[in-house]
Amino acid sequence: MQMKTAAVAGASGYAGAELIRLLAGHPDIEVGALTASGNAGSTVGDIAPQLTPFADRVLDETTPEVLAGHDIVFLALPHGHSARIAAELGEDTVVIDCGADYRLRDESAWTRFYDTPFAGTWPYGLPELVTGDGTKGRESLRGARRVAVPGCYPTAVSLALAPGLAAGVCEPEDVVVVAASGTSGAGRAAKAHLIGAEVMGAMSPYGVGGAHRHTPEIEQNLALAAGRAARVSFTPTLAPMPRGILATATARVAEGCDERAVRDAWSRAYDDEPFVHLLPEGRWPRTGDVLGSNQVHVQVTLDAHAGRVVAVAAVDNLTKGTAGAAVQSMNLALGLPEDTGLPVIGVAP
Amino acid sequence: MQMKTAAVAGASGYAGAELIRLLAGHPDIEVGALTASGNAGSTVGDIAPQLTPFADRVLDETTPEVLAGHDIVFLALPHGHSARIAAELGEDTVVIDCGADYRLRDESAWTRFYDTPFAGTWPYGLPELVTGDGTKGRESLRGARRVAVPGCYPTAVSLALAPGLAAGVCEPEDVVVVAASGTSGAGRAAKAHLIGAEVMGAMSPYGVGGAHRHTPEIEQNLALAAGRAARVSFTPTLAPMPRGILATATARVAEGCDERAVRDAWSRAYDDEPFVHLLPEGRWPRTGDVLGSNQVHVQVTLDAHAGRVVAVAAVDNLTKGTAGAAVQSMNLALGLPEDTGLPVIGVAP
Amino acid sequence: MQMKTAAVAGASGYAGAELIRLLAGHPDIEVGALTASGNAGSTVGDIAPQLTPFADRVLDETTPEVLAGHDIVFLALPHGHSARIAAELGEDTVVIDCGADYRLRDESAWTRFYDTPFAGTWPYGLPELVTGDGTKGRESLRGARRVAVPGCYPTAVSLALAPGLAAGVCEPEDVVVVAASGTSGAGRAAKAHLIGAEVMGAMSPYGVGGAHRHTPEIEQNLALAAGRAARVSFTPTLAPMPRGILATATARVAEGCDERAVRDAWSRAYDDEPFVHLLPEGRWPRTGDVLGSNQVHVQVTLDAHAGRVVAVAAVDNLTKGTAGAAVQSMNLALGLPEDTGLPVIGVAP
Amino acid sequence: MQMKTAAVAGASGYAGAELIRLLAGHPDIEVGALTASGNAGSTVGDIAPQLTPFADRVLDETTPEVLAGHDIVFLALPHGHSARIAAELGEDTVVIDCGADYRLRDESAWTRFYDTPFAGTWPYGLPELVTGDGTKGRESLRGARRVAVPGCYPTAVSLALAPGLAAGVCEPEDVVVVAASGTSGAGRAAKAHLIGAEVMGAMSPYGVGGAHRHTPEIEQNLALAAGRAARVSFTPTLAPMPRGILATATARVAEGCDERAVRDAWSRAYDDEPFVHLLPEGRWPRTGDVLGSNQVHVQVTLDAHAGRVVAVAAVDNLTKGTAGAAVQSMNLALGLPEDTGLPVIGVAP
Repeated sequence: MQMKTAAVAGASGYAGAELIRLLAGHPDIEVGALTASGNAGSTVGDIAPQLTPFADRVLDETTPEVLAGHDIVFLALPHGHSARIAAELGEDTVVIDCGADYRLRDESAWTRFYDTPFAGTWPYGLPELVTGDGTKGRESLRGARRVAVPGCYPTAVSLALAPGLAAGVCEPEDVVVVAASGTSGAGRAAKAHLIGAEVMGAMSPYGVGGAHRHTPEIEQNLALAAGRAARVSFTPTLAPMPRGILATATARVAEGCDERAVRDAWSRAYDDEPFVHLLPEGRWPRTGDVLGSNQVHVQVTLDAHAGRVVAVAAVDNLTKGTAGAAVQSMNLALGLPEDTGLPVIGVAP
Repeated sequence: MQMKTAAVAGASGYAGAELIRLLAGHPDIEVGALTASGNAGSTVGDIAPQLTPFADRVLDETTPEVLAGHDIVFLALPHGHSARIAAELGEDTVVIDCGADYRLRDESAWTRFYDTPFAGTWPYGLPELVTGDGTKGRESLRGARRVAVPGCYPTAVSLALAPGLAAGVCEPEDVVVVAASGTSGAGRAAKAHLIGAEVMGAMSPYGVGGAHRHTPEIEQNLALAAGRAARVSFTPTLAPMPRGILATATARVAEGCDERAVRDAWSRAYDDEPFVHLLPEGRWPRTGDVLGSNQVHVQVTLDAHAGRVVAVAAVDNLTKGTAGAAVQSMNLALGLPEDTGLPVIGVAP
Repeated sequence: MQMKTAAVAGASGYAGAELIRLLAGHPDIEVGALTASGNAGSTVGDIAPQLTPFADRVLDETTPEVLAGHDIVFLALPHGHSARIAAELGEDTVVIDCGADYRLRDESAWTRFYDTPFAGTWPYGLPELVTGDGTKGRESLRGARRVAVPGCYPTAVSLALAPGLAAGVCEPEDVVVVAASGTSGAGRAAKAHLIGAEVMGAMSPYGVGGAHRHTPEIEQNLALAAGRAARVSFTPTLAPMPRGILATATARVAEGCDERAVRDAWSRAYDDEPFVHLLPEGRWPRTGDVLGSNQVHVQVTLDAHAGRVVAVAAVDNLTKGTAGAAVQSMNLALGLPEDTGLPVIGVAP
Repeated sequence: MQMKTAAVAGASGYAGAELIRLLAGHPDIEVGALTASGNAGSTVGDIAPQLTPFADRVLDETTPEVLAGHDIVFLALPHGHSARIAAELGEDTVVIDCGADYRLRDESAWTRFYDTPFAGTWPYGLPELVTGDGTKGRESLRGARRVAVPGCYPTAVSLALAPGLAAGVCEPEDVVVVAASGTSGAGRAAKAHLIGAEVMGAMSPYGVGGAHRHTPEIEQNLALAAGRAARVSFTPTLAPMPRGILATATARVAEGCDERAVRDAWSRAYDDEPFVHLLPEGRWPRTGDVLGSNQVHVQVTLDAHAGRVVAVAAVDNLTKGTAGAAVQSMNLALGLPEDTGLPVIGVAP
């Protein structure tokens, strides 16, 4: 296949830098324009020294002119900024948005959590999401020209629990999720509560009680899986690690389902997936094991005493949780093998 | 008051060392015998260099003879070892057991999780636990000669959720708890999955699906608070920090209760407590803020959308979670002011 | 003794909060005014939630009027701000400056590193510093009305190496020091390179090649010990931990000195010190062991092959490295037992 | 090029697992036998869950029979075990030893630090090492059938300082090195002082005073660079991070050399190297920036006041520090482009 060119808008953030890392290792992609807003004019080396081969590249200003002419444009911008850029990029350009702008189908859900106008809904970049009708998320991504990359928490939670909801072994009405995220999930802006001395050695929740913006996206995915509305209590917590999400999701078990039925549902959903690995019984996911990779490690059990299915997923919030999903979606959009150029082994220990 | 002497059995473990730290700062206590099993003959400095003033003390063998003659004996032994020692210590000795042996009231719950004979039930060392009849846990501790110190997870979970159950604003039948613990909670035995390279940068669950031994103790406490049986889905996780527990506990809100009713319940329970601090609205607990202190930081909110009360508590698993609770119980047993000698300020950042 | 009142100026920084923690545990001190600059008007709980008993206290504006009338005033201000405040506080007030303003004796050393006028020199708050004439630093502190608290790095480096220089077993002309500090040493200002995701999992040097402001203070102390000029290559590094300094200091061994002579020098210097603990041979300091305490752990050996003495010290940068030294100096100034109210046991693990 | 097969002996250790990660991404290599000693019979997933695609592979016993027949055999064994295996593998097999057995040229240096017989000396796998005669380490590796992979500390220290010694701008007689290593450098054996609660939040030195086995290897490399004997004071420290080495190396500056001469020496040595990156002036290496990559980040400055050149290098101890160097050496041995299959971008933040 002929090399394609890819631009990254928002290259000075964590998602942008991770996109560059992955694209640099992709055999069919040539990295084109790298753009930023406040950091335009800086070198990549100033901002993201880990990108050694790009150290001397200067970040351009994020404008449609700079981004035009690439085969693929990745947007890693603050929410509300993607529509204006996307509108200027024609249908011959594949646009993959890592922000929230095009993820939600329900305008009212958008307006409850965001202060910018509803932009619309694009195909959703979660290829492994099982739905109630037996299809998976990748159906809508093949040949797509526009993709909305999922949020990192929704990726972990949805992949943890969707198989059981789709198979009817657990119920969507009273799902409880507690998830821990490494601090890169909060971005690279300098905020007092995020400095190292504050976060090392400490766990804390935030956005509790339904206040986190990812809640409607999680419910949207779980409803798709269940075939009916989902209601989720979601508590995100900040963990003392740079990367990684561990999502613990529980749902009431459906009447009459046993451990075998539960395990079968997850096994059917994931046995053939290249990036979702259902661990052998007795082993539980660990975020460190998927560091820097596009893998999701999943495990599930039935707590018969409590009447709940407990499913746990570990992802790297920047790789499978953002940039890896973006590249995976790009592969589907371009008709490439879905796993092209994506790391499948974590950097552990 | 005249000085009392206190011995620590199991002084080479983390709980034992923390007991020594607290007792050394207690104005009415003189530290007596320090004993160990495999580490007998080592100096304190070899095992726990942080205990500088005790560096040259040699650890004795744990025997009733060595422990006899003290006013107070703290047991920080592996489960199943306390009964034999306690039997040899008369009623003139206050015995405070940091192990699990005497916590449970229900023998069948014990035998489901432990392979040693059921030892009995001692007064339970959680002074702030609100119960359905309007009393608190400290009632049974005043003048007690035997105390069972709570487990670290049950302390955090019970203090997080009991006020709402006791006040009837939430329900005990479908409680979901996910808690993160620092790795000192797993003890100081050298195990491959606990070495630094494995745990730093990684979150992972364990004992999922009701398999953790602390589950019946949590249910026992929550049932006491609610006045009826509690059913808990409990998922503990290992977090990359040395100390601290963050427990996120959710329960279905009772019909007709609003945010105000919820907040009032917690406020009534804790406004006068010296060691439980209900944070101002909008601020959430952070384990780092209670490091090395006997404080519990608690916050609660109502997620009306999900129909759940979400309560969060942060404790230091070794201080309020173990050794601090032991000293606080000792104070009550001896008739001292309950907060004597206990640190109330965390070592942060 | 009658209670004395102490004010803390700069209470919203890390040093200020640690001062409050220590003063709250001091039997002879009542905490008075707590002041801040940009954070004036906030509560202590907003800024430093670990100070639970002070959670509702509102921070005053830092002015001489607010600080006047206390027996002791602690200044924890950015450099260059102490002189103006101190000038307004009479000699009946003990003023203890945690900043750099009054540490240096040599005006030219000051002006090489700071852009504000040289303020003068106050008695130096390092009681254990051995000097070439056989005295120790505490001589100048008894009854002092003004004290300059040492920098955290100079504390660690000077206590590590001074005994050998004072005893003549090693030489001050080519000292090499590499020290690692927890990130609280950089303060609590929100800077991009200090956010958790940047510092966790990473070590990095800064201020290399003599560029760090602590270099002249280190050389001043080592020269005092040696009785002649010292020349130091100092490289500080940022380590992925909230607190703690580990200083590794090497100096050329003096002609004819053996391991015994080296050990004797350190032993003589520290055997009677309450806060400096020379570890038994074969054990090396670990920052975690002094966390939250006023202890310094020190070890030394002779590398005969390399011709260098290697001395290592571990301190908590905020406790013995700043606030603990301030309180220890205050005790000396007030004629109290030097160790009053100071924690001697680290919060480990 | 035709695919080659590679076996890994010692696949259950950290170095072995990292070799598998890199070899799995190498376009010309097929991963063959994976062997272990105590862990033989376990699956890769049991031991190293990050190696998802190999999760079901069972580890064979480490025997010459199992290893025979591969084009390349990597040995990642405890010291003293390589000779017996290597002797059974013919010259048609490329054998790359990640252990210490074949690194040293001086038998007496070996016997001072190791209790097994001296095995001999193999070509040394540090391609970028500049030597006094103007050649680099890679000369001896092209077409080699046996390679001794350097120790992780010697890699970092030698690459930091060799350019200045080779150019004569600094002197080898009184080199002082302090290096910090992530705890994976201590291996994955369960030892009490390495468990997470002990190492998180703590820095500590070990092997001080010339006691670390890597000292003669460092001196050997620096002597090769300088063209005369080197004398090194080496202090390794354990840092609270899983991976990474930060080595700070200082050497006395040669008479008459200025900053420009220093910088030129390093620039000449590394400007064309694919895996050693001399950072722009003012930026210093950070271990996190090379995580999981084969990069070395280097910086140097002249401290004219102290009369010392200060050079700092950051490497990932498992990648460029071990497994990456092994694969790089294999590439040279096989006549492949030296950088084939090696990651050049770090997984940061």
